[in-house]
Amino acid sequence: MLSLAALSLRLRASGCQGSRRSIATVISGNETSKLVRDRLKQEVDQMRSQFSGFRPSLVVLQVGDRDDSNLYISTKLKAAAQIGIDAKHVLRSIMSVNENPSVHGLIVQLPLDSVNRIDAELVTNSVNPEKDVDGLSCINAGKLSRGDLNDCFIPCTPNGCMELIRQTGVSVAGKHAVVIGRSKIVGAPMHDLLLWNHATVTTCHSKTPDLPEQVGRADILVVGAGRAEMVRGDWLKEGAVVIDCGINHVSDETKASGKRVVGDVHYSSANQRAGFITPVPGGVGPMTVAMLMENTVTSARRFLLKNQSQR
Amino acid sequence: MLSLAALSLRLRASGCQGSRRSIATVISGNETSKLVRDRLKQEVDQMRSQFSGFRPSLVVLQVGDRDDSNLYISTKLKAAAQIGIDAKHVLRSIMSVNENPSVHGLIVQLPLDSVNRIDAELVTNSVNPEKDVDGLSCINAGKLSRGDLNDCFIPCTPNGCMELIRQTGVSVAGKHAVVIGRSKIVGAPMHDLLLWNHATVTTCHSKTPDLPEQVGRADILVVGAGRAEMVRGDWLKEGAVVIDCGINHVSDETKASGKRVVGDVHYSSANQRAGFITPVPGGVGPMTVAMLMENTVTSARRFLLKNQSQR
Repeated sequence: MLSLAALSLRLRASGCQGSRRSIATVISGNETSKLVRDRLKQEVDQMRSQFSGFRPSLVVLQVGDRDDSNLYISTKLKAAAQIGIDAKHVLRSIMSVNENPSVHGLIVQLPLDSVNRIDAELVTNSVNPEKDVDGLSCINAGKLSRGDLNDCFIPCTPNGCMELIRQTGVSVAGKHAVVIGRSKIVGAPMHDLLLWNHATVTTCHSKTPDLPEQVGRADILVVGAGRAEMVRGDWLKEGAVVIDCGINHVSDETKASGKRVVGDVHYSSANQRAGFITPVPGGVGPMTVAMLMENTVTSARRFLLKNQSQR
Repeated sequence: MLSLAALSLRLRASGCQGSRRSIATVISGNETSKLVRDRLKQEVDQMRSQFSGFRPSLVVLQVGDRDDSNLYISTKLKAAAQIGIDAKHVLRSIMSVNENPSVHGLIVQLPLDSVNRIDAELVTNSVNPEKDVDGLSCINAGKLSRGDLNDCFIPCTPNGCMELIRQTGVSVAGKHAVVIGRSKIVGAPMHDLLLWNHATVTTCHSKTPDLPEQVGRADILVVGAGRAEMVRGDWLKEGAVVIDCGINHVSDETKASGKRVVGDVHYSSANQRAGFITPVPGGVGPMTVAMLMENTVTSARRFLLKNQSQR
């Protein structure tokens, strides 16, 4: 189920072009996320026609009222509605949602916004692992980190990165992958995914003393460092696949807002050396929401299968 | 609390010797595990004098009657008895042990030996995470893999490897560590431990095409590959810390038994190049049992603290 765009990426990846490539192929998150969402919409339509009255359902639980959270939540609800997922934004207890059989996915919007200190770890781990479509609970992290990929939910950002890597047609097995960052939502699960897709994986972080040398060995590079334009083009291995998870706001007098969004990779130098590169914005960002929808539909599918087998 | 042996290791590590080193310093698991066991015995004595009638307790659950399992279990029971841990070997359900407040540690001896197929994953995950002193449940793996090291049980073999690395006096932070293998009990948790002790970590495995080159970049190398003498001395970086988790039986006509035990590292060439190296046997092996005792005592200590704070 490859689009023409993906097909042309594959041709480039397999080295079919004759002339020397000087600019990296852009891996579009906008296009790839649309492919995913279209596929999910079809699957949801099929579920709904096969099981009358059934609808995949996602609940977004919010504590407080942060502006940025409100924006992220509305993006998720909109994506869900387009696919046919029944999504609700609620402010009640996790337990009642955990027990509600008509809800298949439950996410807690982070950070928690409260005058009282709330243990985010405790809240995240209160979500029923079978509904934890953000994949952030210990149980899902444990399964992913130990290679039980078919029995867990994979966090949305690294899952989206894998989808983008797949779109290039570059095979992951046997490659040297480098991940910069070890956060719970990006770096650490990204390591796991690349490892269990059989790459040799190096994880770098703030304590890595020789980052340019480590990056220079990467066939596949995923950056989730949270530092604007930190990775320079001349660090890269020629032809590398470069996936940039960074979203950084830097000041820019030429913009009406006085700022613009850049990634963790210095794009204009990196695209001179990389084989494939994700833009920011329009790269990893749209994939994150698409993969949340994917996990919700997966959860609904598992629910249907379980109920069928119990009949 | 360093022994003289450890102190002399430290001096060597800090480069105090004048002449060129040609043979690696041996990191003795026998000596280091004795240090750990002596420390634990003291702690258990203290617990027992402070809380009259209290005794740390470990249960080893066995399914079937494999000869090798019987041997491993008797080693564990003996080590526990020496430290003052009350250890039982039982053949009953996990649930009753989970609920028994006088048991602080519960391990299931693997492999499960049964004519009926038993899902080892399911059994491992049935152990109460607060008593899972083997650290093999998803919840403990998830916490370790995401850096919550103080809130979990760390699997005994990699925990023992870290203790051996500490004994060399070589600091882990900022070093390049290479792990060969990605098993649930050795490679994968070893990666996590090195990463969260701030090494830059590369995980290699059967799909890694350039193993000698990867190994050649390791300041710290941990091998859990399960292949006799696979890592050759000339692969190593000069002065590397080499930890060998392998236990392989190879035929040897000169022995009465017709065989001998070797590690995953080719010792006689590796010790010409490494800075520090563990022998096989007498390296990682004895540490594994010592760390099981450590986890059991930790669990007992947590139990006492929890009960104290609830008063």
